[in-house]
Amino acid sequence: MDYSAFFQSKLQGLKDEGRYRVFAELERIRGQFPTATNHGQANKAPVKVWCSNDYLGMGQHPAVLAAMHEALDRSGAGAGGTRNIAGTNVDHIALEAELADLHGKEAALLFNSGYMSNMATLSTLAAQMPGCIVFSDALNHASMIEGIRHSRATCVIWKHNDLADLREKLAAVPPGTPKIIAFESVYSMDGDVAPIAEICDLADEFRAITYLDEVHAVGLYGPRGGGISERDGMAQRVDVIEGTLAKAYGVIGGYITGSAQLVDFVRSFASGFIFSTALPPAIAAGAKAAISHLKSSDAERAAMFANVARLRAGLDALGIEHLMNPSHIVPVMVRDAALCKRISDTLLDEYGIYVQPINYPTVPRGTERLRFTPSPLHGEADIAALLKALGEIWTQNSLSKAA
Amino acid sequence: MDYSAFFQSKLQGLKDEGRYRVFAELERIRGQFPTATNHGQANKAPVKVWCSNDYLGMGQHPAVLAAMHEALDRSGAGAGGTRNIAGTNVDHIALEAELADLHGKEAALLFNSGYMSNMATLSTLAAQMPGCIVFSDALNHASMIEGIRHSRATCVIWKHNDLADLREKLAAVPPGTPKIIAFESVYSMDGDVAPIAEICDLADEFRAITYLDEVHAVGLYGPRGGGISERDGMAQRVDVIEGTLAKAYGVIGGYITGSAQLVDFVRSFASGFIFSTALPPAIAAGAKAAISHLKSSDAERAAMFANVARLRAGLDALGIEHLMNPSHIVPVMVRDAALCKRISDTLLDEYGIYVQPINYPTVPRGTERLRFTPSPLHGEADIAALLKALGEIWTQNSLSKAA
Ligand SMILES: Cc1ncc(COP(=O)(O)O)c(C=O)c1O
Ligand SMILES: Cc1ncc(COP(=O)(O)O)c(C=O)c1O
Repeated sequence: MDYSAFFQSKLQGLKDEGRYRVFAELERIRGQFPTATNHGQANKAPVKVWCSNDYLGMGQHPAVLAAMHEALDRSGAGAGGTRNIAGTNVDHIALEAELADLHGKEAALLFNSGYMSNMATLSTLAAQMPGCIVFSDALNHASMIEGIRHSRATCVIWKHNDLADLREKLAAVPPGTPKIIAFESVYSMDGDVAPIAEICDLADEFRAITYLDEVHAVGLYGPRGGGISERDGMAQRVDVIEGTLAKAYGVIGGYITGSAQLVDFVRSFASGFIFSTALPPAIAAGAKAAISHLKSSDAERAAMFANVARLRAGLDALGIEHLMNPSHIVPVMVRDAALCKRISDTLLDEYGIYVQPINYPTVPRGTERLRFTPSPLHGEADIAALLKALGEIWTQNSLSKAA
Repeated sequence: MDYSAFFQSKLQGLKDEGRYRVFAELERIRGQFPTATNHGQANKAPVKVWCSNDYLGMGQHPAVLAAMHEALDRSGAGAGGTRNIAGTNVDHIALEAELADLHGKEAALLFNSGYMSNMATLSTLAAQMPGCIVFSDALNHASMIEGIRHSRATCVIWKHNDLADLREKLAAVPPGTPKIIAFESVYSMDGDVAPIAEICDLADEFRAITYLDEVHAVGLYGPRGGGISERDGMAQRVDVIEGTLAKAYGVIGGYITGSAQLVDFVRSFASGFIFSTALPPAIAAGAKAAISHLKSSDAERAAMFANVARLRAGLDALGIEHLMNPSHIVPVMVRDAALCKRISDTLLDEYGIYVQPINYPTVPRGTERLRFTPSPLHGEADIAALLKALGEIWTQNSLSKAA
């Protein structure tokens, strides 16, 4: 076995397919989001970031930063251990209480990332319940897929957001089988939204546990930022609501919420929770401040949605195709991998606008896109500059529809 | 399926076996480590923490905290995205360069935890290389086991630190088979150390990749804190050195280091790296400051080992059985799960000393223990108080050997 030749050939394969990733090297500037310094360019020019998942700019919110500075000064840098061995700090307990309250659940459990919360929870639930079958939406995130796969439970994939297909597949298994229906609320690449109520109806009918990933919705939907399940009044009916602290809340970490019993079960059996150092107290304190702020303030959400509408209207005026959806995510369709990458490069090099191309395998081939995430902190001038740039590029490449 | 009854019975099972975990609820006090406030007690009494994996107290080191405050003020709270989509910041790049240098490797890759670095790297390497067989030390950490399991590759478990057994098992598979030998340097529960040179000899002979978890050794061994592989002059010969930023470095996060090609391969194919938000810039900055400090300062290591020797001498004087090993970990053997828990409770309630009992399944039944981790910041009075408490408890329980 020639290991080096093997790695080399796999990497070359990615390069040949145009899928090799080169990371933009940024330096975020607190107080000036969405502006960042681009260290990838010789002149370290400032760029406007248009693809961050710090959707509301909470990563620079004074309340978040104050809480983090305070906790650093009070308790230091790290947690000092796993949750069971010297690692549980009051900031973790307070954050878990805040999260349980956010979703109207009895309990919450923190993980080091949203990825780990999905992976560890789904793998634990599905592996522990004898004969469990997981019904997984076809567009579920990698972290859910890997968690289900890790469990070794049977996985039945249902067509994306397709209730008839889900019903058919639920009906096909013996009634007594333990079942989990795993799905997301806002799907991050298309920005479409799951029919939570109807999925809960099916779960009731077929006695399944519902597992909902609200990673792209918490902080952003619902009167207190509780996600689509809060907005739709469905939080009570969903058994497990999972979320991240790294997107709308601007920090890092993941969590689940649910009944005290289910959360205690995951706490007690999930390897990825038990055997890993807890989040730093300062991270927990910062996330709690972000959640708490967005529970009572609607201003950030309102300003974000206003910017989404502005951007969409401008794209329409220019005849630039964007995927319609009811969310804050604006996918501008290019439908060609090489062109998508080229446009992204042009935006960065010539216009100081950073938006990462989204190509296969993140989205299906032929649906390559630029995925814009307007925040409340993108100003009118930012939007105008983006639209001007896109207009010029679309014209040069003869991409516009009837303008 | 009655889900609630199922969860209930599994939790009851843990309780019946005395394995149900109740977390101590601490508040670390910056500047006073190892002292913490115990919020689990009504009077919130201060406790001395004797089981933290913040081995050197770097979690409160001024250089670490200053770097974190500075990065918070400069770049805000979170990274804002996955590494590929707006999440790579200069602090990540700088930390990866620092880590590559620490281990004398071409490249390094950050993960959100040591757990994830093991899980994602081992599962990616073993799954991608066709027909790969992983040779895993019998006492490897849960995160390595789960990573290997997730890959679906064949896993051959060799007897802990047993070179003859490893050789026999390597020799039993066809020569052309891709192979990974996965092991740790310092094993965290017994504190014993792997024979790295001899394992590398076997890897050369049988053409295997060596994967070494230095989680409990980085920062602590070697003239620059590069771990046992640095101390033994073996870093060059190990293909992948994995470590954590959450123990001796006092913050959070995990990493691998290796050849540029191998690291690029993992960067490009590991789901747990690709699809998860990057660590906050302030975390990266804090970890870099800790590494950099411990590259040039030996004072913390020297003071820690002096305290280890003091504690061991005191235990000997009292006739209290402790597992001999060449590391900084002092396992005091109790060999009974219920008693181990009771002693831990007594230490906390009556003496203000916090040490978590280590019972099955973390260690085999019959080897239950208290695992002490003396830091450079435990004073002579702390050690004296601990020894006095243990002496009294051991006498009360007639546990001491010839004193
Ligand atoms: C739907 C979904 N779930 C989970 C995650 C993982 O969350 P985190 O970034 O906190 O690891 C992501 C993206 O990162 C996601 O898009
Ligand atoms: C040997 C070993 N590897 C990996 C880990 C995981 O590291 P982290 O705590 O950074 O997730 C641990 C403990 O936490 C460990 O003991």
